[in-house]
Amino acid sequence: MDRVVEELVAALPEGAVVSDPDVVEGYRFDRASTVTPGRPRAVVRATCTADVQAVLRIASQHRVPVVPRGAGTGLSGGAAAVDGAITLSTDRMRAVDVDPAAMVAVVQPGALNAEVKAAAAEHGLWYPPDPSSYEICSIGGNLATNAGGLCCVRQGVTTDYVLGIEVVLADGRAVRLGGRTIKDVAGYDLKRLFVGSEGTLGVITEATLRLRPAPPPLATIVATFDDVVDAGRAVTAIMGQLRPATLELMDAAAVAAVEAVKPMGLAAVGALLLAQCDVGSADVAAVVAACESAGAAYVAATEDADEGELLLGARRMAIPCVERLGAVLIEDVGVPIPRIPDLVAAVEQVAARTQTRIPVIGHAGDGNFHPLVTFDPADADAAARAQVAFDEVMRAALALGGTITGEHGVGSLKAAHLHDQLGPDVLDLSRRVKAALDPDGILNPGKWI
Amino acid sequence: MDRVVEELVAALPEGAVVSDPDVVEGYRFDRASTVTPGRPRAVVRATCTADVQAVLRIASQHRVPVVPRGAGTGLSGGAAAVDGAITLSTDRMRAVDVDPAAMVAVVQPGALNAEVKAAAAEHGLWYPPDPSSYEICSIGGNLATNAGGLCCVRQGVTTDYVLGIEVVLADGRAVRLGGRTIKDVAGYDLKRLFVGSEGTLGVITEATLRLRPAPPPLATIVATFDDVVDAGRAVTAIMGQLRPATLELMDAAAVAAVEAVKPMGLAAVGALLLAQCDVGSADVAAVVAACESAGAAYVAATEDADEGELLLGARRMAIPCVERLGAVLIEDVGVPIPRIPDLVAAVEQVAARTQTRIPVIGHAGDGNFHPLVTFDPADADAAARAQVAFDEVMRAALALGGTITGEHGVGSLKAAHLHDQLGPDVLDLSRRVKAALDPDGILNPGKWI
Repeated sequence: MDRVVEELVAALPEGAVVSDPDVVEGYRFDRASTVTPGRPRAVVRATCTADVQAVLRIASQHRVPVVPRGAGTGLSGGAAAVDGAITLSTDRMRAVDVDPAAMVAVVQPGALNAEVKAAAAEHGLWYPPDPSSYEICSIGGNLATNAGGLCCVRQGVTTDYVLGIEVVLADGRAVRLGGRTIKDVAGYDLKRLFVGSEGTLGVITEATLRLRPAPPPLATIVATFDDVVDAGRAVTAIMGQLRPATLELMDAAAVAAVEAVKPMGLAAVGALLLAQCDVGSADVAAVVAACESAGAAYVAATEDADEGELLLGARRMAIPCVERLGAVLIEDVGVPIPRIPDLVAAVEQVAARTQTRIPVIGHAGDGNFHPLVTFDPADADAAARAQVAFDEVMRAALALGGTITGEHGVGSLKAAHLHDQLGPDVLDLSRRVKAALDPDGILNPGKWI
Repeated sequence: MDRVVEELVAALPEGAVVSDPDVVEGYRFDRASTVTPGRPRAVVRATCTADVQAVLRIASQHRVPVVPRGAGTGLSGGAAAVDGAITLSTDRMRAVDVDPAAMVAVVQPGALNAEVKAAAAEHGLWYPPDPSSYEICSIGGNLATNAGGLCCVRQGVTTDYVLGIEVVLADGRAVRLGGRTIKDVAGYDLKRLFVGSEGTLGVITEATLRLRPAPPPLATIVATFDDVVDAGRAVTAIMGQLRPATLELMDAAAVAAVEAVKPMGLAAVGALLLAQCDVGSADVAAVVAACESAGAAYVAATEDADEGELLLGARRMAIPCVERLGAVLIEDVGVPIPRIPDLVAAVEQVAARTQTRIPVIGHAGDGNFHPLVTFDPADADAAARAQVAFDEVMRAALALGGTITGEHGVGSLKAAHLHDQLGPDVLDLSRRVKAALDPDGILNPGKWI
């Protein structure tokens, strides 16, 4: 046992330091299946803030890297293990404490998103952020990536719900940023610097999350289009008029992939839009009209909540359904809303040029898309072409004034493209901030920064 | 003429460097009337990003401080001049360019908030953030303080509308952060670090602001209470059920101050709540019921937009009306919503203890309050007691788990209290970030950081 591991064992509760290779193996990967992770020196399953502090103190002293890790459901390799590093898992830090009067939940990072939603619902309250993986992803990971989901178009993303955090810095100090007040401009907005920093600036050990009243019942509108360009025009028209609760797009290939698993009679469509608006509001008719004006082949609206959830559920199933077709490189590009048709057209061209299947799903109301670059992992040539396609889709998004990642994070998968997006001056600025907060560079090294 | 001013004159367009003492005088103060500003070396009225870069390059080279300045309507002394510094005004950088399809406005910092709203409205769009000073305050100042307003309770604050910024760093480099996409997690959230940094990290020279569709018509509910504690209970009940478009509170003294200027028959109330909800929604009845349950003396709702605007206008007039009673130290404290009655009670106790009038107005739905510490500036003893009261209200907010500033900023007025709020570790963290971005400390020195 090396000295660092000895010190960890001495400092931490019994069982917190894991070195059994079979158990460690389960902490090496996240869900970015094409990333090859390193072999950690040890996995620490922290039970409290003090454990996290102990790990970072020891790591700092020995300049050993630390890879913070939530539930391991990340899609960009942000939690992938690093050779010789300590993987610091928060999966045992699961407390959720709701204060209904203050409308906040005080949450440890290992709590699952669905657990926070459930705890809030017990008090008639709602934690809106809803990554499609909400049943299996942790709040810590949501904070690390500033995760989004289907509700963002009206409700915003994770950072919009963070009133305060406790974060352990690289040197082991725990600091509290923000608090419980809704508006707070006292000092720099440091908490929002840590949110979305993918474990490179500190380890969030607690978050005070804002809750909302339970949402009103939603009507669901489904519209199919022969041509995805028409669907894009419908999105622009809808967003210019109103603020839907959901506005999702699936292209023909994505619809077909879901149909193959869960048939709903939607096989032969060019594109599908799913929208949700408040029951009884004028927005429902406005969305229907916008889809019809944009040339929808079929439009229907339902106020039945179960039927609406079935349709949304089909959308959430898209990634697992496409994964049945082969290995998948999951894009997360974003473009300004009027450029949606250009993005979809660019993806089609990339698919044709690289002879790769790329079904497209996306949070159309936010211009955030997940082209799913699909390939046979046993075919080395197909895998190479898929990598080219993956890169070209990100380049296309940047050429359209967009971003390489809207909600999944940069991780290890997109580091090169991040440099293209930010340019040398912003990278320099980012590195100065990183150096100010983690001078020895021990936090999640070898990822994008 | 000193050498720095000579270099400025040589580098900048004719007329951009102002040294006429009468003109300079108008650029020394903001609206924090109790702050005594210094005497700047020169005022530069920049016309473009390149001018701002030239100023910062020269200032960096000579290690001369720079005080960035918008419209000078700040309430905390953040733009107050510093002896020997360059005051860098953006008041000539006024361009507003709306892209209706992308639903963004690209705005220079000197544009007034009202000008952005008007430009958006020409396209049927809306820029929500609405500080009460929206007709005279600039977007640059709004960004510097992360300004709020009456609409925040539903629509959020300035930072929620910033998709991208161009910012000139202390060394004169201009960088672009963010862009035009709605969701973007590529790299650190640096743009939100600059927003709210009160000119201490860089000078924002352009912002890409998100616009919304024009809002639906609003009904206005007015409720009076004999006791402000009952009004506080109504706020908690409303916020637990729904998301109003506005939820404002005025205490008896604030109502009386407005009545004295603009009589509306509301003189003898203990507290007044103003709420707005979508016309035709069930929320109107829910707000009325919540006020009645909490013991309102009088409740009325109107769907008449003009009547609603008249009531909101009375609320916006509160600060100028109170200013007729004497000099005012404007608080900006925030507390968790259930602590509103405790805050109001604490303010009453401070007022009694210090024999100072402190009318209270506030954005109740966000728990953000403006106790207005009012005194006769010709009475030195009253002024000293007012300063004690000002300090004690901030201490009371902190004791209630709150903040010393929800939307006005720290500036020069609240620096000591900020240190109490943040504590030494967070201050150290803030200073490390400051040093990373402004190593010579030339940007707005002597304010809070």
